[in-house]
Amino acid sequence: MTATPTPTGGEPVARHDGRRADELRALDVLPDFLEQPHGCVLWSQGKTRVLCTATVEQDIPRWLRGKGRGWMTAEYSLLPASTGERTQRGVSRGRPDGRTVEIQRLIGRALRAVCDFEALGERTLWLDCDVLQADGGTRCAAITGAYVAAYRALDRFGLSKALPGSVAAVSVGIVGGEALLDLDYVEDSQADTDMNVVMTADGRLVEVQATAERDPFSRDELDALLDLAAAGVGELADAQRAACALPLP
Amino acid sequence: MTATPTPTGGEPVARHDGRRADELRALDVLPDFLEQPHGCVLWSQGKTRVLCTATVEQDIPRWLRGKGRGWMTAEYSLLPASTGERTQRGVSRGRPDGRTVEIQRLIGRALRAVCDFEALGERTLWLDCDVLQADGGTRCAAITGAYVAAYRALDRFGLSKALPGSVAAVSVGIVGGEALLDLDYVEDSQADTDMNVVMTADGRLVEVQATAERDPFSRDELDALLDLAAAGVGELADAQRAACALPLP
Amino acid sequence: MTATPTPTGGEPVARHDGRRADELRALDVLPDFLEQPHGCVLWSQGKTRVLCTATVEQDIPRWLRGKGRGWMTAEYSLLPASTGERTQRGVSRGRPDGRTVEIQRLIGRALRAVCDFEALGERTLWLDCDVLQADGGTRCAAITGAYVAAYRALDRFGLSKALPGSVAAVSVGIVGGEALLDLDYVEDSQADTDMNVVMTADGRLVEVQATAERDPFSRDELDALLDLAAAGVGELADAQRAACALPLP
Amino acid sequence: MTATPTPTGGEPVARHDGRRADELRALDVLPDFLEQPHGCVLWSQGKTRVLCTATVEQDIPRWLRGKGRGWMTAEYSLLPASTGERTQRGVSRGRPDGRTVEIQRLIGRALRAVCDFEALGERTLWLDCDVLQADGGTRCAAITGAYVAAYRALDRFGLSKALPGSVAAVSVGIVGGEALLDLDYVEDSQADTDMNVVMTADGRLVEVQATAERDPFSRDELDALLDLAAAGVGELADAQRAACALPLP
Amino acid sequence: MTATPTPTGGEPVARHDGRRADELRALDVLPDFLEQPHGCVLWSQGKTRVLCTATVEQDIPRWLRGKGRGWMTAEYSLLPASTGERTQRGVSRGRPDGRTVEIQRLIGRALRAVCDFEALGERTLWLDCDVLQADGGTRCAAITGAYVAAYRALDRFGLSKALPGSVAAVSVGIVGGEALLDLDYVEDSQADTDMNVVMTADGRLVEVQATAERDPFSRDELDALLDLAAAGVGELADAQRAACALPLP
Amino acid sequence: MTATPTPTGGEPVARHDGRRADELRALDVLPDFLEQPHGCVLWSQGKTRVLCTATVEQDIPRWLRGKGRGWMTAEYSLLPASTGERTQRGVSRGRPDGRTVEIQRLIGRALRAVCDFEALGERTLWLDCDVLQADGGTRCAAITGAYVAAYRALDRFGLSKALPGSVAAVSVGIVGGEALLDLDYVEDSQADTDMNVVMTADGRLVEVQATAERDPFSRDELDALLDLAAAGVGELADAQRAACALPLP
Repeated sequence: MTATPTPTGGEPVARHDGRRADELRALDVLPDFLEQPHGCVLWSQGKTRVLCTATVEQDIPRWLRGKGRGWMTAEYSLLPASTGERTQRGVSRGRPDGRTVEIQRLIGRALRAVCDFEALGERTLWLDCDVLQADGGTRCAAITGAYVAAYRALDRFGLSKALPGSVAAVSVGIVGGEALLDLDYVEDSQADTDMNVVMTADGRLVEVQATAERDPFSRDELDALLDLAAAGVGELADAQRAACALPLP
Repeated sequence: MTATPTPTGGEPVARHDGRRADELRALDVLPDFLEQPHGCVLWSQGKTRVLCTATVEQDIPRWLRGKGRGWMTAEYSLLPASTGERTQRGVSRGRPDGRTVEIQRLIGRALRAVCDFEALGERTLWLDCDVLQADGGTRCAAITGAYVAAYRALDRFGLSKALPGSVAAVSVGIVGGEALLDLDYVEDSQADTDMNVVMTADGRLVEVQATAERDPFSRDELDALLDLAAAGVGELADAQRAACALPLP
Repeated sequence: MTATPTPTGGEPVARHDGRRADELRALDVLPDFLEQPHGCVLWSQGKTRVLCTATVEQDIPRWLRGKGRGWMTAEYSLLPASTGERTQRGVSRGRPDGRTVEIQRLIGRALRAVCDFEALGERTLWLDCDVLQADGGTRCAAITGAYVAAYRALDRFGLSKALPGSVAAVSVGIVGGEALLDLDYVEDSQADTDMNVVMTADGRLVEVQATAERDPFSRDELDALLDLAAAGVGELADAQRAACALPLP
Repeated sequence: MTATPTPTGGEPVARHDGRRADELRALDVLPDFLEQPHGCVLWSQGKTRVLCTATVEQDIPRWLRGKGRGWMTAEYSLLPASTGERTQRGVSRGRPDGRTVEIQRLIGRALRAVCDFEALGERTLWLDCDVLQADGGTRCAAITGAYVAAYRALDRFGLSKALPGSVAAVSVGIVGGEALLDLDYVEDSQADTDMNVVMTADGRLVEVQATAERDPFSRDELDALLDLAAAGVGELADAQRAACALPLP
Repeated sequence: MTATPTPTGGEPVARHDGRRADELRALDVLPDFLEQPHGCVLWSQGKTRVLCTATVEQDIPRWLRGKGRGWMTAEYSLLPASTGERTQRGVSRGRPDGRTVEIQRLIGRALRAVCDFEALGERTLWLDCDVLQADGGTRCAAITGAYVAAYRALDRFGLSKALPGSVAAVSVGIVGGEALLDLDYVEDSQADTDMNVVMTADGRLVEVQATAERDPFSRDELDALLDLAAAGVGELADAQRAACALPLP
Repeated sequence: MTATPTPTGGEPVARHDGRRADELRALDVLPDFLEQPHGCVLWSQGKTRVLCTATVEQDIPRWLRGKGRGWMTAEYSLLPASTGERTQRGVSRGRPDGRTVEIQRLIGRALRAVCDFEALGERTLWLDCDVLQADGGTRCAAITGAYVAAYRALDRFGLSKALPGSVAAVSVGIVGGEALLDLDYVEDSQADTDMNVVMTADGRLVEVQATAERDPFSRDELDALLDLAAAGVGELADAQRAACALPLP
């Protein structure tokens, strides 16, 4: 297969929802959607809606005590009806499925990359990303939203310095031979290559995960996807900044 | 202890949020909060917020096939940050805790009591009640909301006759010697007796669960609580009717 | 359905085993059936036979230490062949089923309602209710028997003051339009409404659980059932007293 | 260590309960202790009391169908309070412990050795051995009792020809240098060598399991123990025969 | 941090084991190390030793039948003593840990990318990668070895056309500011960025997973790592070809 | 059935692989097959190949501390492809199967019988026996190999006095009426009686497990099998001694 990525220039790409190849889905960001969690945002990107909450616990696991450093744990879950057809709960199977395990580890690594654990002190930051509605890109929306929830929770305790940098994520992919930004479910299921990119607000890479869903891909395609992702993360970082700047409740 | 239930008459009771003894918390009912599930409502009663979804599956468990009857399953879950302090996910323990099991069984019995399984046909109705924020009375809000989600899901498939009656639930309790309607978390944790009542819209009882949290209670107290509950369920049934009557999306 | 509860007066009800509507099944109470447990009774009520044992452990869970208070745990299990057709063991499924969880929680609440945990001191009271033969009403027989086993175990250690009151339970139900006391399995499976009532020996209510198995029920029916239950619990309390008064082995 | 087994001759051995070295504990055999199981015996040997039940299911696991042969499954469990100090239930751990697994497999092999699966036909024979009180030798008592329960259950269905032979088991051991029959808990915990022997009524061996608990043992010791066991099994076989010959309920 | 990747040119890098920056560890490839599995290779890369076996089952999961396509499953496990300090077995925890889940999914995706499931027909290809000794790069060695085991197993059944392409994997990373090929454990634990690259023998990408272990990384660093990896995979593909070409046992 | 054991004398027995009745399979003993574990041997006996490793941990479980004694744990596992047809991993079922549990307990008892836990001190000795290829007799090969791995691991830490004696095991059985030493899989699956014997190098018995797979067996048969086993263990003890005497790596 010879893919022809066209992230810039050329004829406009016809996406099923009318977006350009390099266009994010509409963002709808509701900080403090719930009032009881320490930090909370309902992050909607198109139809994908992820409820991200952050909880600051004034303790750490026993084996970490006395080192002056904090700990962070991230969990991710799909609500059963989030996917249209109902998905079985993890608890009914007795354990999270492989996809969930993989996503939780990704979210954790992404957020840890920008966390200063000495500044956090001997506290645990719990991040929970619950997908209320899934339409592709849920793991990326979870990372982007989790940063906002984490920031607002820490800020409430005067600990915002524990997050000196910010992090956001976006999915990109090769669909029908073209590189597209922020795939929804329909596009994702047709993609030849699917990539999730986690970046800091200043443009450095935290995690790159590219997977050939059908045919293997070339270095040129990888490069085109990375370009698209960098631009998308820039826009997401702006939305994060705005949400973090809102006054605390 | 001699309790003095005063559901009617006497001096107005001073509840910490200013409600009368026989007053429900403010209702905020958002049908179709999500667009992908077959039926959905975000049911808020005070700070308690439960996302109820219903999914109609065109199949039933194997051992039920060929009998022309349907099946219903209800699941309930607390989001980890719903309770202020973070609650561990069931999947992390490998199984639902005892309280969750008990609540799921209660929700299932409540909805089955008003379901006509012949009219449902060989289909499964999945009800999912996910508590986004918990401030007391979550199992009752889950029942009341699940009915709305179920009705709207069935209606979409032309199957509303499978729910010929409606059902709603409310908690009541003896707090400081007085019978109160619709306890929030603070009241619930101080209650001597706690009762959940599930009733049909026409005032018949589906389930009564009364528990002495501290001292045992008398028949008089039980009667006072049942009176309060009956009035509360009446108001909830009105809100359900309004939500069910909205046009389908 | 219009039920006609007739707990008192009217024509005698024809029950399949010849009992009156307000008649308990025959009791057969064997304290100290085993000699090794601290407290033990084989409680038989008709064909329902529950082996109740109580163990006093001179320790409490770690998180409770230093508060001068005790702890109690109740477990319930059906022996596989107890039900005629063989029931799978919980251990083969890896966890107790929902019904078992619900019953264990009920037994625990019932016994805690009459336990003085300060008088118990920093000890754990383990209650085990193993149903050797099941013919309806096993959870109620378990509560009634567990009280006897608990009392005798505590008495052996000079701790009977930790159980200042007593508690017993009985099932009642509406069968064929009539309110009946102490349902056996055949009656239970035909009941429109099924209720378990836990009461103290002095007639106060500890727990009321009424469930519409078919049609919802009315307040009048609820009242008739409560009357029946109160009388039944009185008789059970007498049998408990006699068993507790036997000399220790 | 030089052990001096003296199963026959020599000075009488002083056992803590006054038995001779070659003497079984007192047997108390109660067939039909419960009335609902297909076959049942409460087998007591000293303080060890095992409730054995047998259930005949008119079906076999799917993968065995169509071969005209039956199936047998044996389960073993200690009631929590059976051991004086409370033992945790298998279901609380989520799985049977290693000792239970080993015992269940032993019981199954013992009974299968005397079962004619063609004569059983496409049925499953469930054997459940629940130890009500444990004072050593529970696995052997379970085998001996399970045979009686199995025979009576099969006989009720006219299937006694599926058990053409009988099987019984007894423990023996070297304690303080002497070979002893039918160890109780105190003796068992002092034994240097512990052996369980499963034999048919006509004196052939089905299973021999000898274990050095402290020092290894010699061939002479093994021989002395086998002699003791053979005599003990003979007495147990007589008791089984008597129990099997009782008229069915 | 400003990393200075030097995969080509410049002063030779001093690695602790004396390798050049772009040098693989010594390969030791033992096909048919065991004789019973359908396909088998003991793949050693430095001290990392992975036993890869492949089993061809003449059946597929039920839900896939009748579509004329095959199925593949990959499992990965560390032997407890493989890591020097003993690692707990997955079975002792009751489930594979998160890292194992992630690796199994990676191996599966890698091999599926070069498998023709129509050519495989309705068969299941089981791939088992058991790490006998772990010294970094085990997931990559598992992929590279699994291909050889799979090829030899399929070849034995005349099904080698089901693997029309080949796939291999290698780890690369930034250590002390330099890009290095095929990290061992010591290097891996010091790496700032760690990347696993899965490629086909003809140089196309199947999977790229780059993770910032400490500071985020730049596009230039990513590019330098990809260059290194491409060269390393070329050498591995040669070793695979040689192993696959050996006559079948 | 009348078996005619002929371990010595008479016509030579025709075994399918040409061995005499009293002949072990060919031994291939590779100490230090891996270099990272504290002690390691790849023990091959015919096609049966077991990788045995031993790890010395400088700690013991918490509840054992302060008594000056050590602890030992043995684990056993079949690699999935070890058996020709693939065997499911224990971790996929969530727990070890019954056979594995039984074998782990046997290995543990065998090694504990020759271990001096005071000499070991407050350390844990982990023994892992992973069957790479299974062709009968894996539990016996695991015991024999585990002793070598344990000795070499302890010797490395100057703790060889914690293993004052040695232990080895061999399987024997009655096949076609003849007593045979060291059964392979084909013989084992045809055996009427199967016996595993664990002995010390000086000829004392540690464990005897004899099982009638088809017909019960006689005392004479048992004696013939014990004679065969004693000779076989003598040869295995020689091989162990040679492997233990090799210089440490």
